[in-house]
Amino acid sequence: MEAPISTRQARLRSLLKARKLDHLLITHIPNVYYLTGFRGSAGMALLGEGDAVLFVDPRYTLQAKDQARGVEVTEAKQRLIEAVGGWLKTSKAKEVGCDDSSLSYATWRALQQAVGRRCRLRSAGGLVEGMRMVKDPFELGLIRRAALLTSEVFEDVRRLVKPGASEMDLATEIEYRLKRKGAEGVAFESIVASGPRSALPHARASSKLLKKNEFVIFDLGAIISGYAADMTRTLYLGTPDTRARRIYQAVFDAEKTGIKAVRPGTRAGAVDATVRRSLARRRLDEYFTHSTGHGVGLEVHEKPRLGRGDKQRLDPGFVVTVEPGVYLEGFGGVRVEDTVAIGKDGPEVLTSSPKEDWIIP
Amino acid sequence: MEAPISTRQARLRSLLKARKLDHLLITHIPNVYYLTGFRGSAGMALLGEGDAVLFVDPRYTLQAKDQARGVEVTEAKQRLIEAVGGWLKTSKAKEVGCDDSSLSYATWRALQQAVGRRCRLRSAGGLVEGMRMVKDPFELGLIRRAALLTSEVFEDVRRLVKPGASEMDLATEIEYRLKRKGAEGVAFESIVASGPRSALPHARASSKLLKKNEFVIFDLGAIISGYAADMTRTLYLGTPDTRARRIYQAVFDAEKTGIKAVRPGTRAGAVDATVRRSLARRRLDEYFTHSTGHGVGLEVHEKPRLGRGDKQRLDPGFVVTVEPGVYLEGFGGVRVEDTVAIGKDGPEVLTSSPKEDWIIP
Repeated sequence: MEAPISTRQARLRSLLKARKLDHLLITHIPNVYYLTGFRGSAGMALLGEGDAVLFVDPRYTLQAKDQARGVEVTEAKQRLIEAVGGWLKTSKAKEVGCDDSSLSYATWRALQQAVGRRCRLRSAGGLVEGMRMVKDPFELGLIRRAALLTSEVFEDVRRLVKPGASEMDLATEIEYRLKRKGAEGVAFESIVASGPRSALPHARASSKLLKKNEFVIFDLGAIISGYAADMTRTLYLGTPDTRARRIYQAVFDAEKTGIKAVRPGTRAGAVDATVRRSLARRRLDEYFTHSTGHGVGLEVHEKPRLGRGDKQRLDPGFVVTVEPGVYLEGFGGVRVEDTVAIGKDGPEVLTSSPKEDWIIP
Repeated sequence: MEAPISTRQARLRSLLKARKLDHLLITHIPNVYYLTGFRGSAGMALLGEGDAVLFVDPRYTLQAKDQARGVEVTEAKQRLIEAVGGWLKTSKAKEVGCDDSSLSYATWRALQQAVGRRCRLRSAGGLVEGMRMVKDPFELGLIRRAALLTSEVFEDVRRLVKPGASEMDLATEIEYRLKRKGAEGVAFESIVASGPRSALPHARASSKLLKKNEFVIFDLGAIISGYAADMTRTLYLGTPDTRARRIYQAVFDAEKTGIKAVRPGTRAGAVDATVRRSLARRRLDEYFTHSTGHGVGLEVHEKPRLGRGDKQRLDPGFVVTVEPGVYLEGFGGVRVEDTVAIGKDGPEVLTSSPKEDWIIP
């Protein structure tokens, strides 16, 4: 299956028309890939009603010509932004949309200077990110594969989880096995955090050794053809006491409730509220210090955000995480996270590692 | 040995004074780490004559309090930039330097709005990057270790280079072994590019299998405590013909000449010119399509750039790469790269894998 590049370009063109923009300058790299198929680490695309140009530096000319579809590849002899500016200056474009959260202040001003006065730069960030929320079947297939691989590798690595293993070594094994099994990369630096460190929601894996009677949080994700998955599991080494059991059960239940809430038509903020209510019933909501989830796709954190008050409606084709956590400073933390696709009839959990099986005696 | 955070902050304060800035807003993450010791993935620091504040979101409060030195840690309840804006608004700061290449246009405008009219934002990017060009002994020690580890792992992986091995598998082995031997991460996705793919200067490792009678380029680097190394070696599988030998020898010689030119007082552009002249003597300069090198430290690409016409003078304490390459479309390419520290008396090559030993019969 090939990425429907021409469909995406056509959709974007109609969005531009509706916004009365002559061109959109695409500078955020995942958006460049999404709209052209080019996978280099640097490049800018200009898309207008009658034309589409991909600007790359000489390192990437061959690769761009090989990968990009529906665009004319132009090798920039100077800085990319200057090439874009020069092109726009000699074009008929008057209203050009730019992504003000991807372009730096310095670059924006350089572009303004290069295009001259006749051409107006307008903030139009988020257009492509909005399109990307709805995954096409090509994308869904890749995320599904990334999620499956992530789950398989976690099941594999679970066997290495024992007192004396270091967080760092487990993280290294996770990444190695993801790649050996076909991931082109990892969606983010794998987290392995044990004992009191599991109370740090974004701890990195450290040289700490695992011990009996502590939680261990694993947060990992594969990338396949640019598409990410994201999954967290928490294990307990030894025999959990009442408090540990209570926390795990609360997070487990909150996640289940959250997943059920992920349906077409629901607002993102409502999913977050559902999860918080579930934790509040156990008086643990104050220890849930981040938002409930985020979109997953070409980026491991993308639109929509599932946080307090987020108004975005969830549609079929969205892929999001649900990831409640409870973090008790000095004691430890629990987080459970799945990547979930929203189908017409409701949620489909893509990451499949069991969650009931959390105690390693 | 500890990072000399207070010395760095003092140096920056004197730079601010010279520029008549009340505060500098530090938003580029490697700069935040350099000036505070905080290693989270999100945070902003404000440094002024009499104060220093580190703004982090709730995820990072504990970690920031543990790691940061010489700053007051402030937990932002809203977006970081809003917390910074609020702080500035109630302070006496009038002239605030901001990094216009790290702040997005959208964020810059949000900050402008938050600080109000009394406070002026001024472009002051590059100040910290300028300081970072000269490595202190703490930094040099870490880069030296990263370089050594990079070389050791390459020597290890060299034994796996044979027909039938895939580029991707070799890249995975490189990353696995770097981490197993103590790297906290890789400085960039390792490149393994063979045959015609070696003519793509920034090819990613693919599923292609290595064959007899082709070049294989390896570009890799370890990170240790945040500090990177960067090394490229090219091998030939089989028996190189006259053309392959001629290209390898030309790049090998150009690199040697380049390393010799890396001395205190020389301009960066002069090193680049030396390397190009060396290739020109073999009429291969037109196939050298990128610049000769770049600084290495907290980022794998940092100041200075060693390219055409770059005026920056090289000083003792700089660490740079020298990396000529020759790329023949359809045939293959050769690149040889070392990380080189500039001492008072001249260059010290930190990456130690042999370059003479390039043929695997």
